[in-house]
Amino acid sequence: VDVKDLKLLARKPGDPPREIKAGPVTFGGESVVLIAGPCAVETREQTLAAARFVREKGARMLRGDAYKARSSPHTFQGLGEEGLKLLQEAGRATGLPSVTEVMTPEDVPLVGRYADVFKVGARNFQNFALLRALGGQPKPVLLKRGLAGTLEEWLLSAEHIAAAGNPNVILCERGIRTFERATRNTFDASIIALAKRLSGLPVVADPSHATGSKELVEPVALAAVAAGADAVMVDVHPEPAKALCDAAQALTFQDFEALVPKLDRVARAVGRKLL
Amino acid sequence: VDVKDLKLLARKPGDPPREIKAGPVTFGGESVVLIAGPCAVETREQTLAAARFVREKGARMLRGDAYKARSSPHTFQGLGEEGLKLLQEAGRATGLPSVTEVMTPEDVPLVGRYADVFKVGARNFQNFALLRALGGQPKPVLLKRGLAGTLEEWLLSAEHIAAAGNPNVILCERGIRTFERATRNTFDASIIALAKRLSGLPVVADPSHATGSKELVEPVALAAVAAGADAVMVDVHPEPAKALCDAAQALTFQDFEALVPKLDRVARAVGRKLL
Amino acid sequence: VDVKDLKLLARKPGDPPREIKAGPVTFGGESVVLIAGPCAVETREQTLAAARFVREKGARMLRGDAYKARSSPHTFQGLGEEGLKLLQEAGRATGLPSVTEVMTPEDVPLVGRYADVFKVGARNFQNFALLRALGGQPKPVLLKRGLAGTLEEWLLSAEHIAAAGNPNVILCERGIRTFERATRNTFDASIIALAKRLSGLPVVADPSHATGSKELVEPVALAAVAAGADAVMVDVHPEPAKALCDAAQALTFQDFEALVPKLDRVARAVGRKLL
Amino acid sequence: VDVKDLKLLARKPGDPPREIKAGPVTFGGESVVLIAGPCAVETREQTLAAARFVREKGARMLRGDAYKARSSPHTFQGLGEEGLKLLQEAGRATGLPSVTEVMTPEDVPLVGRYADVFKVGARNFQNFALLRALGGQPKPVLLKRGLAGTLEEWLLSAEHIAAAGNPNVILCERGIRTFERATRNTFDASIIALAKRLSGLPVVADPSHATGSKELVEPVALAAVAAGADAVMVDVHPEPAKALCDAAQALTFQDFEALVPKLDRVARAVGRKLL
Repeated sequence: VDVKDLKLLARKPGDPPREIKAGPVTFGGESVVLIAGPCAVETREQTLAAARFVREKGARMLRGDAYKARSSPHTFQGLGEEGLKLLQEAGRATGLPSVTEVMTPEDVPLVGRYADVFKVGARNFQNFALLRALGGQPKPVLLKRGLAGTLEEWLLSAEHIAAAGNPNVILCERGIRTFERATRNTFDASIIALAKRLSGLPVVADPSHATGSKELVEPVALAAVAAGADAVMVDVHPEPAKALCDAAQALTFQDFEALVPKLDRVARAVGRKLL
Repeated sequence: VDVKDLKLLARKPGDPPREIKAGPVTFGGESVVLIAGPCAVETREQTLAAARFVREKGARMLRGDAYKARSSPHTFQGLGEEGLKLLQEAGRATGLPSVTEVMTPEDVPLVGRYADVFKVGARNFQNFALLRALGGQPKPVLLKRGLAGTLEEWLLSAEHIAAAGNPNVILCERGIRTFERATRNTFDASIIALAKRLSGLPVVADPSHATGSKELVEPVALAAVAAGADAVMVDVHPEPAKALCDAAQALTFQDFEALVPKLDRVARAVGRKLL
Repeated sequence: VDVKDLKLLARKPGDPPREIKAGPVTFGGESVVLIAGPCAVETREQTLAAARFVREKGARMLRGDAYKARSSPHTFQGLGEEGLKLLQEAGRATGLPSVTEVMTPEDVPLVGRYADVFKVGARNFQNFALLRALGGQPKPVLLKRGLAGTLEEWLLSAEHIAAAGNPNVILCERGIRTFERATRNTFDASIIALAKRLSGLPVVADPSHATGSKELVEPVALAAVAAGADAVMVDVHPEPAKALCDAAQALTFQDFEALVPKLDRVARAVGRKLL
Repeated sequence: VDVKDLKLLARKPGDPPREIKAGPVTFGGESVVLIAGPCAVETREQTLAAARFVREKGARMLRGDAYKARSSPHTFQGLGEEGLKLLQEAGRATGLPSVTEVMTPEDVPLVGRYADVFKVGARNFQNFALLRALGGQPKPVLLKRGLAGTLEEWLLSAEHIAAAGNPNVILCERGIRTFERATRNTFDASIIALAKRLSGLPVVADPSHATGSKELVEPVALAAVAAGADAVMVDVHPEPAKALCDAAQALTFQDFEALVPKLDRVARAVGRKLL
């Protein structure tokens, strides 16, 4: 495997992994970072409750989307700027930096006023105008792999961001689309090590969106850490049954609390730590 | 197959197919529309030469991109507005309406000043901000299916455009990504009839991007027309060996001239016509 | 595309397509061969009725399986030798040669006593012991492409048969498994021309198993002929609602009668003929 | 997810996982079983050396194929019965039970005389005649998932074996075929937990065939154990550069020695153990 056009982000033999900082958090260092929070920011109470709980149990970054990419135009599309404000408030209340989705170049300045890390969703992983806009500002970008995104394309999308001026890219494996429909997507465990070897960029795993099923979040999260993931991002909701999107994959507080020490044990088994 | 959230664009039993007009051309009527031209607008001479030739041999619309979605940032990305001007000039010189790619919402007004039909590429088929922007203006939108786009998602992306105000969507099957790599993508012949049955929208086939190989353009173009495609769009280049992108799939003038009467014969065999 | 290990069956520049004979029928010649009949042989009446009808309307070969590959052990697995006898009787009564599935090497002599052409199903396309057994006898073998079978693997499976002594292989494109589930499989129109160019072997299209839906059989059958298929094989059942397997894809007699002249028109549009 | 036709092997709420014994080894118990050995049995020396080394370092079962499923007929197909004898000899010399491939029903008695566990390869996972033959004897069957095998089909293939009389099936996830070609296959980490929840059968992971690359064997093996795999099977060769098949994925003795304690640490992190 050789990605010829990977120039700015190519890892040369002997290069250490790249570390990327977002506030007090470092991706790609010894610690495995736990990112948690609601799939979508829905209400002030929901976001604050989730932020407080995940912070207390070991999360180091808060997730929550104000802009949702939804296949259908007739479903909840996110709260927009109001959601960004709620996320920021919850982040400040808990001391957690936040990551949230940005969907179009013109929203980059707005989202950047509220969030610490930009998230580019799977459906936008080759939205090159967006990638360029994110390359024109300094905050880290969490770049999800596309549903049909090859490793080469994924790394080259990171290269698009770097070529526009910002090398602070964090990759995120969130499952690829295959023939298998028993799971929402197929989590590709082997790509983590390969992406890190070729680019040195940190890799986050998103077992919630990869599997689409809360029962499978734990085994896949553990697998990801064992395979070398630098962070794990999971959906947590105070009342999953009432979630406005992706209810089936959200962990309850109880699920999350049970997961954290297991993740820490596997992290330690591979020479890292979570807590 | 039932797409629950397809409301504005759903075809009810007994509904005729939808006809969509772009200047003198009608998509979805008796005639199969032939769209041809260079993959990318490169020079004035190249664009004009291609436009004149394809017009003379039977094309009814000119294609040519000024903005190219390229996996790598280190390759030709298109001429931008200069390319739009060249395309418009070639269209006017030949009387052909034109279709060209738009990649980001903020370019919609600019591209709309030059082109007759907007093209949304496979990598942007779920770029919802772009779809909404195109829904806010009246020109037709040629919406390519994503590389991993299900029929349901594709129709719902059309619904996004319609929900924002513009029902003039033309679908474009350009091959999907599968395990098979002997061809660049896998042209999905069966989806044409199914998309038309569910939505009534016209469907264009793009055998050039589907196969990635000029030798396979002809059999796939013929297959598409036999399967009910309302239009065929092919890459044609005066000198394919010098093409700045996708050289392997561009037809020469000679290839194109040989293809047209064959397409017409198959169109007539299924009760339509091309010439 | 180059299949290095394709030695016995490689087509050299200038080689004509290969013609393969099965009784009075020639695959790979000017005529497009229509193969029709029930998916499974169920009863004497069903098989005879289907054979008589399809023969009268233009079919030149009878299909019908006595051994069915079924995912579940708790469903109809075929009539076995009794089914072979019924198929042979229907073939003799109508003068149609027959093609039927063989699933294991030890059944080759038995099936060969009754059928004119052996069919290897998609699930057995890399059952190498079966391929070798079929290479040890002279009757033609219709080799379906596997659900995840690349063009290279498919041609090399044909090479396995040839290497064991029998070069009379007819390829059959029956759709591949992809992420798209609106159709049962994805019919790969472009592979027909490519398979013929590399090997010269005749290629049959099976739109019934490719689509899994009787409404889609016609457009895909027409597409296949336009793309260069040498034969089309369709499921036809006197009473599809009572079919013991794959009921949704079986054509009624009325459907079949409507299809044949359309196929013939498309065949003639590409310089061949069906009737 | 519900597999309606899974009757004999369905796991009911409250059912414990199934334990399957092969000589001194138990699959599905507290210990994670390490299976190792050459991809193919090539020589007496190679097989004995590999068996002795892997035994000493912690393997509990010996792998080695005498019959190889190869896409091309012009490559090494395995030593046949001679290979079975060498594998048996190496197993006896080290006290390791053995697992080896069987490719056709008529070989079942022969292979059964030498091996402790039958392996059904990915290409035969819906070779129903073979599954039935294996259901007619009592030794455990390690059933690989097909390249395009859904979870449902895989479990139903196990059900075929059980329906023929033998419920001792061990599932093996070895990667599925997807669009991604940077790895040979895509290892599906989430399917392990799901397969166990639905069937209770033990699940083995084969990171060697899943990735096709020795550098990726370790991360994927660790991921599999973290995700709940009951066993890990890896290719080990005294001199990988001289391997007659799949050389790129074989671990050296040194690689294997480094892997074992890591696997044990991850196993212990999830409440199990390897050594």
